[in-house]
Amino acid sequence: MPQFDAIWINANIASMTDNGQPYGLIENGVLAVKDGVIAFVGARSELPAFDALSTPLYDVQGQWILPGFIDCHTHLVYAGNRANEFEMRLKGASYQEIAAAGGGIKATVAATRAASHEELFVLAKDRLNSLLAQGVTTVEIKSGYGLDLSSEQKILEVAAELNAHHPVSVQNTFLGAHALPPEYAGDADGYIAAVCRMLPQLHALNLVDAVDVFCEGIGFNLEQTRSVFNAAKALGLPVKAHAEQLSNLGGSALVAEFGGLSADHIEFLDEAGVTAMAKAGTVAVLLPGAFYFLRETQLPPIALLRQYGIPMALATDLNPGTSPLCSIPLMLNMACTLFRLTPEEALAGVTRHGAAALGLADRGVLAVGLRADFGCYQLSQPAELCYQFGVNKLKQLIINGKQVRLP
Amino acid sequence: MPQFDAIWINANIASMTDNGQPYGLIENGVLAVKDGVIAFVGARSELPAFDALSTPLYDVQGQWILPGFIDCHTHLVYAGNRANEFEMRLKGASYQEIAAAGGGIKATVAATRAASHEELFVLAKDRLNSLLAQGVTTVEIKSGYGLDLSSEQKILEVAAELNAHHPVSVQNTFLGAHALPPEYAGDADGYIAAVCRMLPQLHALNLVDAVDVFCEGIGFNLEQTRSVFNAAKALGLPVKAHAEQLSNLGGSALVAEFGGLSADHIEFLDEAGVTAMAKAGTVAVLLPGAFYFLRETQLPPIALLRQYGIPMALATDLNPGTSPLCSIPLMLNMACTLFRLTPEEALAGVTRHGAAALGLADRGVLAVGLRADFGCYQLSQPAELCYQFGVNKLKQLIINGKQVRLP
Ligand SMILES: [Zn+2]
Ligand SMILES: [Zn+2]
Repeated sequence: MPQFDAIWINANIASMTDNGQPYGLIENGVLAVKDGVIAFVGARSELPAFDALSTPLYDVQGQWILPGFIDCHTHLVYAGNRANEFEMRLKGASYQEIAAAGGGIKATVAATRAASHEELFVLAKDRLNSLLAQGVTTVEIKSGYGLDLSSEQKILEVAAELNAHHPVSVQNTFLGAHALPPEYAGDADGYIAAVCRMLPQLHALNLVDAVDVFCEGIGFNLEQTRSVFNAAKALGLPVKAHAEQLSNLGGSALVAEFGGLSADHIEFLDEAGVTAMAKAGTVAVLLPGAFYFLRETQLPPIALLRQYGIPMALATDLNPGTSPLCSIPLMLNMACTLFRLTPEEALAGVTRHGAAALGLADRGVLAVGLRADFGCYQLSQPAELCYQFGVNKLKQLIINGKQVRLP
Repeated sequence: MPQFDAIWINANIASMTDNGQPYGLIENGVLAVKDGVIAFVGARSELPAFDALSTPLYDVQGQWILPGFIDCHTHLVYAGNRANEFEMRLKGASYQEIAAAGGGIKATVAATRAASHEELFVLAKDRLNSLLAQGVTTVEIKSGYGLDLSSEQKILEVAAELNAHHPVSVQNTFLGAHALPPEYAGDADGYIAAVCRMLPQLHALNLVDAVDVFCEGIGFNLEQTRSVFNAAKALGLPVKAHAEQLSNLGGSALVAEFGGLSADHIEFLDEAGVTAMAKAGTVAVLLPGAFYFLRETQLPPIALLRQYGIPMALATDLNPGTSPLCSIPLMLNMACTLFRLTPEEALAGVTRHGAAALGLADRGVLAVGLRADFGCYQLSQPAELCYQFGVNKLKQLIINGKQVRLP
C-alpha cells in the first residue's frame, strides 16, 4: 500500500504554525496526504521515500499553499433579503418607518419561518458555494432566525445537511437567544426560559455544537445570557457571545467565566474584559464587515488584544441585516484596512485562530496529523491575499485530502 | 431574413432610461436584438410579430435585465503589486522607509516598464475577466505607469489589444501626467512638455480616446494641467482629471472650462467647481474604493452634486496603489454604504452615467438602437445588487448581442 495518497511539490507553504518563520513559512515545500490527513509537510529534502509510480504528484510551480479558510461566525441559513429596507434607509426613511414596513430582523424571521427546508437549503448552498470558491473549507452556522423550537430546528437541520452533502465542513451553533420573537414581546425572561427548554431538545437531535447569545442592550442582558450559558454547561456544550458590539455589558468576561470559545464583535471591550479572556483562553472574533456596514466608529481594542496575546479570529458575520457580505477575501482586506491588522494576523484569523474559535484542534494550520484542508494560490506573497481584492488567486482547493471542483 | 437575432422574454427590465419609473423599469418586459443592437425593448404586448420558428427565445423567468456595467475609471494595465508596502505599513513602517525600500508608484512604474507586452496582457486579462464575470461590458483603461513614450505606448497597445481580443469593450485614456518619472525629478514643467510631445505621437497610432491629468498638490498643478489639456484640445481629444481628491485645486472647473468629460474623485470639490461642471455638463466620477482604501474622511459633496443635477458615475479606480479592488459590485455597496448614494444612483453610476463619463452615447441604458450589452440577474429587486455582496447573481451576460461565456 502506498505511503501517501497524493503529494504537492514545489510549493511555498504558509503553514500558519509557530515555526519561527512569518506565516509559518516552508520554502520549496512538500505536502503529502494520506486518508484525508496531512502525512508530511516540510522541505523536499526531508520527504521520505515513496512509490513514485503509484502516487499522484502535483507540481504547483511556486504557488502558495495555505490552510483552508475557516469562517467561524456566520448566520448563513436564512430566507428573504433586506434590500428593500437598505434602499428605504438610503432614500431617507427613518427606522420607525422601516419597522412599520415590516423591516429589521422581524422580516428575516418571518421569511425564514415561512421558508421550507428545501428553500433554505438552496439559498444557503449558494452562499456556501461562494465561500468555497474563495478557499473556505469550514464554516460555523448559527440559528437565530427561527426563534421557536421547530424553526430553530429547521435551520440547524439545514446546516447539518449542508455538512453532510457539501464539501465545506459545518459547525452548528444554537443562537436561540438572538432576538425576542413577536410571541414573547415584553417578556424577554420568558423567552430565555423557552430557549433553555429548546436547547436540550435540539442537542438530543445532535444539532448543536455550541451555544451563542446576543448579549447587548438591544439583545439580552447579562443575567439572561448567564441562564442560557448554564443550560449549555449542563449539557457540556461550549458557549460564545455576540458581545460588546454597541456597548460594554461584560458579555466577554461572562464567556470567559464559562471557559467559553469566543467573544465576537467586541468593539467596546475594556481591559477588564481582555484580562478575563486572556485568563480563560477565550478567542476574540473580529467582524469588520458589520463594522463597515453599520458605519461604526469605535474600533475593537486591537492593541490590548495584542498586548494580552489574545488570539484574534476573523469572520464574515454573514447575515442579511448587518453584514450581507459573503466574502472572506473582503474581510481580510477590511481587517487590514479598517482594523489595521497585519496581513499575517488577518490570515491567522481565518485559519489558526478561526479553528480555535470553534474549538477545532484538527485544522487551521498545516501540520502532520491534521485534516488535509488547503488551497493553492498564485501569489507573490501571502499578504497579496489581504492587499488586493477581486481577482481570485485560488487555483486548487483540497478538502479532506481530496481536490474539490470549484463552483 | 428574420426580424430579430434573439429575444429575451419574461424579464424585469431595469432599462435605466428616464421613463418615469424607478430604474427605468419595464415589468414583464421583452428585449430583442438584431446585429448587435437592441431592436426592441418594451412590454410583451407591444412586441411586433416575428418568426417564432427561426428566432432563439430565452425565457428568463422573472430575472432582472440591466445594462452591461461600465467601469469608467481604471488603471488596470500594470505589472507588479504593492502587497509588500501594504504589509510594511501595517507593521509600522513609515512612508520614508517604504519609499527607501522602493515602494510607492515608483515601484509600479519600474515593474511596468520592465514587463513585456505579453506579460502585461496576461495580467490585465485576468483583471478584465474578473470584471466580465461581474457583468462589466465596457472599461476605461488609463496609461500612466510608463511615463516615457515607449512605455506609455506599450500600456495603451495592451489596452487596445484587449479591446480587440476580449469581449469587454475598452476605451483608452492617456494619463502621461500621472506622476513625475525619475528622469525628470525636480523638473515637472519639463516633464509636462514631454507629455505634450508624446500625446500627438500616441494619438497618431490611434491609441488615445481621451486625456487625463493627475491634478493635485502631489501631482501636477493647474497650469501644467492646462498645458496638457491644450495639447489634447489641439487634437480634438476630450479631457478629464483626477481632481480635488486631497485638496481643492480647481481641476474640476478646469475640466469644465475645456468642456471635458469628467472630474474624478472630487472629495474636496466646492460649490464653484460644481457650478462650473453643471454648466459644462461634466460628469462627476465617484471612486469609493480609493476613499475606503486610503481611509479618507472627507466625503464628496453628494448633496451639492444632486442639487445641481450633476450626473454621478461610479468606478473602481482599479490600481495597485490606492484601490487594488477589482470589483464593481463592491463599489456599488461602498457607494451606498460610505457615500450614501441610493441604489438607483449607484446603478446609474455604473451604467448610464458611466457611459456619459466616457462620452459614449451608444450604451449605458437599454433602448432601441443602442448596443445590446446587458446582464440577466437572479434578483428580488435591483437594490439587491448594491445591498448584498459576494454571491454573484449574474446568470447570463450579452455583449454586442452575443451571449458571453463567463470566465
Ligand atoms: Zn453575528
Ligand atoms: Zn485613478
